[in-house]
Amino acid sequence: MNSYGTLFKVTLYGESHQEAIGAIVDGVPAGIKIDDELITSDLMKRQPGAVGTTPRKEKDEFKILSGVFNGFSTGSPIHIMIENQNIQSKDYEHLKNQPRPGHADFVAGVKYNGFQDYRGGGRFSGRLTAALTAAGSIAKMIIPFQFENKLVQVGALKDMEWLDQYLSEVSKAGDSVGGIIEVKVSGIPVGLGEPFFNKLDSEIGKMMFSIPAVKGVEIGKGFAGIEMMGSKFNDEILDARGKTKTNHSGGVSGGISNGNDLIVKVFIKPTSSIQKEQETYNYTTNSVEKLEIGGRHDVCIARRAGIVVENALAIVLADLYLINKAYQK
Amino acid sequence: MNSYGTLFKVTLYGESHQEAIGAIVDGVPAGIKIDDELITSDLMKRQPGAVGTTPRKEKDEFKILSGVFNGFSTGSPIHIMIENQNIQSKDYEHLKNQPRPGHADFVAGVKYNGFQDYRGGGRFSGRLTAALTAAGSIAKMIIPFQFENKLVQVGALKDMEWLDQYLSEVSKAGDSVGGIIEVKVSGIPVGLGEPFFNKLDSEIGKMMFSIPAVKGVEIGKGFAGIEMMGSKFNDEILDARGKTKTNHSGGVSGGISNGNDLIVKVFIKPTSSIQKEQETYNYTTNSVEKLEIGGRHDVCIARRAGIVVENALAIVLADLYLINKAYQK
Amino acid sequence: MNSYGTLFKVTLYGESHQEAIGAIVDGVPAGIKIDDELITSDLMKRQPGAVGTTPRKEKDEFKILSGVFNGFSTGSPIHIMIENQNIQSKDYEHLKNQPRPGHADFVAGVKYNGFQDYRGGGRFSGRLTAALTAAGSIAKMIIPFQFENKLVQVGALKDMEWLDQYLSEVSKAGDSVGGIIEVKVSGIPVGLGEPFFNKLDSEIGKMMFSIPAVKGVEIGKGFAGIEMMGSKFNDEILDARGKTKTNHSGGVSGGISNGNDLIVKVFIKPTSSIQKEQETYNYTTNSVEKLEIGGRHDVCIARRAGIVVENALAIVLADLYLINKAYQK
Amino acid sequence: MNSYGTLFKVTLYGESHQEAIGAIVDGVPAGIKIDDELITSDLMKRQPGAVGTTPRKEKDEFKILSGVFNGFSTGSPIHIMIENQNIQSKDYEHLKNQPRPGHADFVAGVKYNGFQDYRGGGRFSGRLTAALTAAGSIAKMIIPFQFENKLVQVGALKDMEWLDQYLSEVSKAGDSVGGIIEVKVSGIPVGLGEPFFNKLDSEIGKMMFSIPAVKGVEIGKGFAGIEMMGSKFNDEILDARGKTKTNHSGGVSGGISNGNDLIVKVFIKPTSSIQKEQETYNYTTNSVEKLEIGGRHDVCIARRAGIVVENALAIVLADLYLINKAYQK
Repeated sequence: MNSYGTLFKVTLYGESHQEAIGAIVDGVPAGIKIDDELITSDLMKRQPGAVGTTPRKEKDEFKILSGVFNGFSTGSPIHIMIENQNIQSKDYEHLKNQPRPGHADFVAGVKYNGFQDYRGGGRFSGRLTAALTAAGSIAKMIIPFQFENKLVQVGALKDMEWLDQYLSEVSKAGDSVGGIIEVKVSGIPVGLGEPFFNKLDSEIGKMMFSIPAVKGVEIGKGFAGIEMMGSKFNDEILDARGKTKTNHSGGVSGGISNGNDLIVKVFIKPTSSIQKEQETYNYTTNSVEKLEIGGRHDVCIARRAGIVVENALAIVLADLYLINKAYQK
Repeated sequence: MNSYGTLFKVTLYGESHQEAIGAIVDGVPAGIKIDDELITSDLMKRQPGAVGTTPRKEKDEFKILSGVFNGFSTGSPIHIMIENQNIQSKDYEHLKNQPRPGHADFVAGVKYNGFQDYRGGGRFSGRLTAALTAAGSIAKMIIPFQFENKLVQVGALKDMEWLDQYLSEVSKAGDSVGGIIEVKVSGIPVGLGEPFFNKLDSEIGKMMFSIPAVKGVEIGKGFAGIEMMGSKFNDEILDARGKTKTNHSGGVSGGISNGNDLIVKVFIKPTSSIQKEQETYNYTTNSVEKLEIGGRHDVCIARRAGIVVENALAIVLADLYLINKAYQK
Repeated sequence: MNSYGTLFKVTLYGESHQEAIGAIVDGVPAGIKIDDELITSDLMKRQPGAVGTTPRKEKDEFKILSGVFNGFSTGSPIHIMIENQNIQSKDYEHLKNQPRPGHADFVAGVKYNGFQDYRGGGRFSGRLTAALTAAGSIAKMIIPFQFENKLVQVGALKDMEWLDQYLSEVSKAGDSVGGIIEVKVSGIPVGLGEPFFNKLDSEIGKMMFSIPAVKGVEIGKGFAGIEMMGSKFNDEILDARGKTKTNHSGGVSGGISNGNDLIVKVFIKPTSSIQKEQETYNYTTNSVEKLEIGGRHDVCIARRAGIVVENALAIVLADLYLINKAYQK
Repeated sequence: MNSYGTLFKVTLYGESHQEAIGAIVDGVPAGIKIDDELITSDLMKRQPGAVGTTPRKEKDEFKILSGVFNGFSTGSPIHIMIENQNIQSKDYEHLKNQPRPGHADFVAGVKYNGFQDYRGGGRFSGRLTAALTAAGSIAKMIIPFQFENKLVQVGALKDMEWLDQYLSEVSKAGDSVGGIIEVKVSGIPVGLGEPFFNKLDSEIGKMMFSIPAVKGVEIGKGFAGIEMMGSKFNDEILDARGKTKTNHSGGVSGGISNGNDLIVKVFIKPTSSIQKEQETYNYTTNSVEKLEIGGRHDVCIARRAGIVVENALAIVLADLYLINKAYQK
């Protein structure tokens, strides 16, 4: 249940406070130049540091333990491991009794009968996205597409110029905000995606909602297209290669890439852990009680999530790209 | 690529104008009472007839050819077949040369090298959702949950009381509109969903985007939650069973059902086929030209899609329900 | 659980005495010429008629209901359906109480809680191999390899010249015999098979044991190699293309095709249904009692199974062939 | 392609001479006591030391880096890692030019375009079976069955009392021999196995042929049943629980466990690497030439493979056991 993909297959393991997290990246063609610097720089983009992100910093140094020889992929699974450091496990025990609102504490306790590793969010920690990101870097080495991601909205704020100031205020209020991230991918050929159930957008939907805190996914215009009539929404085709006048479909027609830019938007909910006191059920006292979550957290996790969304998308595309290759003459 | 699911597995086949469409529904526990009337009534809900839907009506009579004996499932795959009738294939040939905006004509031609069955949309036809719907009816016989679906917006219209009048106007204008459908499922126990990649919302994302014309998917509050602070977005837990005060998370925490109502919203884009003349590339003349799409089409396909979305969701839930059962004591 | 394959995917449905059996063949490249006559002639080879085969004959007429247009594959799933005819369901009811030795009657009753369709063996009937065979015919249209199958042993008989006479005697004795079938495939390029778990031989093992009555599978020399030393067993490589002096490995090295002929042998156990009276447990009387199985059965099902084994192997090869294509430059 | 299983899923990574090999074991129910000593003792059984096994000894110390908390499984993937030590990589380079008979050197070079890690057999090394074995130990913690494995034949030798003496002689001759291993599993309930393609024996076939050097697999009597008539081969059922008088079917009927002992036999070919000089193609000189393989190797790898076969079988059974649980009332 922790694997994704048909040919290009990513398996994730790890919990926040155990020894390591990592990814097994299978199905990488032999002979791909493995660019360690891309992995490093992608992982750096996920690092906190900016206003609105947690002051707790982990180094995210990765090791490749298999599947690469003399700098090239061997065709065997690539194991990327990131050891957990900077672990402070003491302050989590009370969460077993008073599950945090918005977190998976409660459901994990029920599903795993209390055996889950609850420290630092365990397997539900955003930390696992580091391994996902690294796997996505490998994906990008396979597919010759261009990726861009950007924050398009943070809370009520649509002008990113004021972002630092806005997040400082949210932080002072002891609160958190969500964000909308848009990823654009250029250079995708026509034909990626396998209807009925492995459509390009189906796979994007699956992958995007796998990223913690994502509560909405759109392709192209998305929900904002609701007030458009068909005559306006339809993208007129302009040339023999399928270039369209508008791109309301976001590069996907009938579940298949249509040669235009792929546009994906995701909504990341506000960080669940906030400084402000909240109320929630306490299993020890059997009543709703105040909860103060210790530690310092991201005020806006969306600020760090762009590269995660981008690289997760790359995994989807690498898989469909290889599948598509199987059907080329 | 036309199969969905891990234990409860649905395989779809068929094209709009070939002999039959259908679904193989695998992994149904033996001994389930197969309620033909539910399948019939679910298929009826997908039928056109209301204002804004196509006057072309197919009977959608289904046959079960395997997997049911004396009215109960045998544990063997259930084959539900719907024969294609009311086929008028003559008027499609020109679409090979002038692909319709918003349709899969162009991408299908490229992907399948011109060998696709282009008649009536072929495998990209909304018609395949009849088989999906029937498969979902079987899913609902397995899971003891309550489903409700409703249109919450159609074009600019949010008050469904004026729906017929609104769609008449759109129809008169020779245009089409999209819609937003919300499905609510009650009675889901805590624990459905398998992180990291088979989360409840991941699977919902995959399935929803598999439905033709879906361009956006939300769980719970969705994108509308962007302006909420974490202190407001977080759902406070009220009792030992996980009931929450609000349900912004839409019944899913950490990718796992949390015992509250599951809320899923999808945006269905405006029907691509419209009466109005459009412009698009013509491969015969190598220039952009006027295109008039013959026939009569749904002005608002979203009006018929509620049961499709509902039943597609049931397929997801049946699969995760069976997986979850494997881990119960 | 009734699907096989990663890209080239076969889903089987049907029970012996329900309306139809069939196969959904997914992942067929668009533009493959679909040769109905090959399907027909392959199905004919599975037909009884020879000495030692059942006098009950079914026509096995197939229909293709989707995925083929103007004689070529469309890229959409191909549905091949074979309707059940010549059904005499009356004489099976007593088997619910006294399961036949060597049959699946007992295990099916337990596994499916008595809801299985027990008529004619239900889903455990050899009849399902007709659909498997037809799916394999499609596979052979994709892969440019040459297939041969032959019986190499029947009971104690190794000289097939005496086969008719030998089986007549077994038939007179009211008994049955098993057989060993060898399939040889030529023309396979080096490189099919995906270690560790999708090796060529792993997939062959899975597929061969899926064929009813198979109780042993060998690649190349197989168990007969036990008395050979390594110096003799090892196949010396003779040229740059990997041609070997001997072929004890049966064309597979490290789970990957090595360019030599693929040699697969399977042991098909003696037909379970025999004329002779047998003893077995009776659930009505709670004691072991005589059982006489009515009807007339194959004395040697292996005589009809060659094409089944051959075509099943073709399915494995078509899938690995497409996967391999995804990794070609 | 390096993953096995539907619910209980094992992903293997690693090459012989890279930093580590390992297994991600997914789908383990939460709350299983993880018995490190069982893993250690299973890995010990695979260690060389006895007559006929290589003098090169690796410690096979494993680490569990995720999925276990306070000694119990958390429900998250368990990562078992075994670091590679005792690596001498210098003596392998020449194998690129002169592939060893019986090895995967040649096919790997073609399939991976020369990018494979050829040191020590790379991913084709028997070393990967250490990770498989450890994964199988976890499987055995889930399923309450009893396992036994034994060598039943080594080369021409059937009386294992003389084994040491026999292998000494083979060793002196600079040669190698194969072996036949039998695994017996008791305590399996009726009902494991999912026809048509996930039958118990199908999955066993797939798994067994995944083990390096396996060239034949039998269930129960296997090929030796060829001379038996049906009246003798059929296992008469003796009681209401399905106990049979004989067990020629090896515990599997119709692809489903029948409650009797599961009997699996595999043929392991003679070790490919031998002391004796052999002839094989040399790509540098473009001619067949003498080859002397350096190093000291197992004379009879089958002697160490019993626990590998046993634990691989446990993986199959754990997966089918969990699947079967999903269908229990």
